[in-house]
Amino acid sequence: MIIDCHGHYTTAPQALEDYRKRQLAELGAGTRAAAKGALAISDDQIRDSLEAAQLKMQRERGTDLTVFSPRASAMGHHLGNADANRYWAEHCNELIHRVCTLYPQNFAGVCQLPQVPGVRPDNCRAELERCVTQFGFIGCNLNPDPSGGWWTDPPLTDKWWYPLYEKLVELDVPAMIHVSASCNPNFHATGAHYINADTTAFMQLLAGDLFRDFPALKLIIPHGGGAVPYHWGRYRGLAQDMGRPPLAELLGENVFFDTCVYHRPGMELLLKVIPADNILFASEMVGAVRGIDPESGHHYDDTRRYIDAIDWLSADDRDKIFRRNVSRVYRRFDKRARGR
Amino acid sequence: MIIDCHGHYTTAPQALEDYRKRQLAELGAGTRAAAKGALAISDDQIRDSLEAAQLKMQRERGTDLTVFSPRASAMGHHLGNADANRYWAEHCNELIHRVCTLYPQNFAGVCQLPQVPGVRPDNCRAELERCVTQFGFIGCNLNPDPSGGWWTDPPLTDKWWYPLYEKLVELDVPAMIHVSASCNPNFHATGAHYINADTTAFMQLLAGDLFRDFPALKLIIPHGGGAVPYHWGRYRGLAQDMGRPPLAELLGENVFFDTCVYHRPGMELLLKVIPADNILFASEMVGAVRGIDPESGHHYDDTRRYIDAIDWLSADDRDKIFRRNVSRVYRRFDKRARGR
Repeated sequence: MIIDCHGHYTTAPQALEDYRKRQLAELGAGTRAAAKGALAISDDQIRDSLEAAQLKMQRERGTDLTVFSPRASAMGHHLGNADANRYWAEHCNELIHRVCTLYPQNFAGVCQLPQVPGVRPDNCRAELERCVTQFGFIGCNLNPDPSGGWWTDPPLTDKWWYPLYEKLVELDVPAMIHVSASCNPNFHATGAHYINADTTAFMQLLAGDLFRDFPALKLIIPHGGGAVPYHWGRYRGLAQDMGRPPLAELLGENVFFDTCVYHRPGMELLLKVIPADNILFASEMVGAVRGIDPESGHHYDDTRRYIDAIDWLSADDRDKIFRRNVSRVYRRFDKRARGR
Repeated sequence: MIIDCHGHYTTAPQALEDYRKRQLAELGAGTRAAAKGALAISDDQIRDSLEAAQLKMQRERGTDLTVFSPRASAMGHHLGNADANRYWAEHCNELIHRVCTLYPQNFAGVCQLPQVPGVRPDNCRAELERCVTQFGFIGCNLNPDPSGGWWTDPPLTDKWWYPLYEKLVELDVPAMIHVSASCNPNFHATGAHYINADTTAFMQLLAGDLFRDFPALKLIIPHGGGAVPYHWGRYRGLAQDMGRPPLAELLGENVFFDTCVYHRPGMELLLKVIPADNILFASEMVGAVRGIDPESGHHYDDTRRYIDAIDWLSADDRDKIFRRNVSRVYRRFDKRARGR
């Protein structure tokens, strides 16, 4: 069994995007308070949106299940306000729940949080709890920069975030550290902001003592850990110069990287420098890069191929990365997988 | 001959830092307008500051010459004001000139620019010209985020920067894209801000048409290109999805990466995915990471060792990276090197 820990519902029916557009337009016009409103999407529309995309690719690539969350770039925590972002997160999460109910063997749910820049994430606890306890979701996406590229909230190691971490630990679910779109023209979303956020988050964790306060907290850093594995010597050296613990200790049972690295040399580097216990298979399909590499004839984001081609990877490590680590990190995964 | 294209004067005598502190304190107190003032540093103090550090390491590591600029983290464009930053840049550059005059065989000068957030870099042209034409400097460091971590100025492809690019092309010198310290608590300077800036700059160049307007402009992206080589497949795929030219074409005679990558797997990746024509040897010593790797017994930033150990690198490519590319990128290098 091969589990992809990082997929977003990027192919959701148009009505979803229309809902958000309308909501933000209404807010902008100031004509009335945001109300949750309804979303008219049929089960058949959901099936159609997945059959030709994520489900087809699962079959083609020989992967079994995707840990699935709302489209990251559309979370847009920097838009709207507390009410609007809550309704938006609720709709997005309810749609993921419907996906997981229609295809329990193919998807496990992860939720979007109703974050707002400058608002302490106490307001995210209820939606997280609802998704985990009522929908059977197994994690959440935590945006370390709800301002969308201006980085105006405190680092992840600040007590600001503790109310959310407390709830994560209580519910025994991990968070993937994942930004949304960038409204700062300096940062291309998927080409700079995503990768920068991964690098930034890791360095915050390296410099702080978050896991002393939350030893059971588990965080996944996506996109292969940003720049971190490539600069592993730099981070080892910085940790040493700063009198911090060795990086293997920092990772431990707390920090995990996914395999969203879209070429073989990068994947080899990741598997060489990061312990297999701290790597989770992922592709982020259908996501940031949709094309076919003319050099290989395969999709750039068909990450399974790069791993399959690495002959020095032991069968045991391969199994950890493809499957076993998921149960260690998403501790509700096995309970949840009713389809199997 | 081995040329290190990326070294900062991080060991400058204390009087330099004291000058800046006093200058900023005076500005803060608002008691008087900033005046340039004097810097009392003797030639012997300069010699002492280098003999036990950069020069010793050149000898130990078997490198010959360092392309040398003021301490990057101390540029602090987000501090001071236009006058203060100009005086500060002048002092820093004059000190580099003294270094290069004392040790013409060991150092070639690169200047700091008197940037100020929100100020178009017209104000940098005179100091750049002075350093190149009067001091024989061969390039400059260009800070893509003078705000120090808030990213409030436009992307590097914006016309905002064109007055500076015009002068760079006129003088036939390249710029290294290098941020300074971060005053945003989210970004550790050398562990996040530096690397993020490299990644950000590359993605800006990928998305824009800067080299159509400035075909002769040469930019060096330091720290091994940030996250870019590790995510080369992602960038190739993004360029393809966006209808941009292939990345090899973007690099061409315009974009170069240095080798400040502090472990062998990272260095191997860099040399594997980036054409040797676009890589310049560098270590950034004495810089961000100063310790000795207990696993190897050598300094993390002794980057020559990683390259020497890569047996599949051809002698020709090695020579390009260690030496020949410098003359292609720093086109005033050969004219300048009076010591040889």
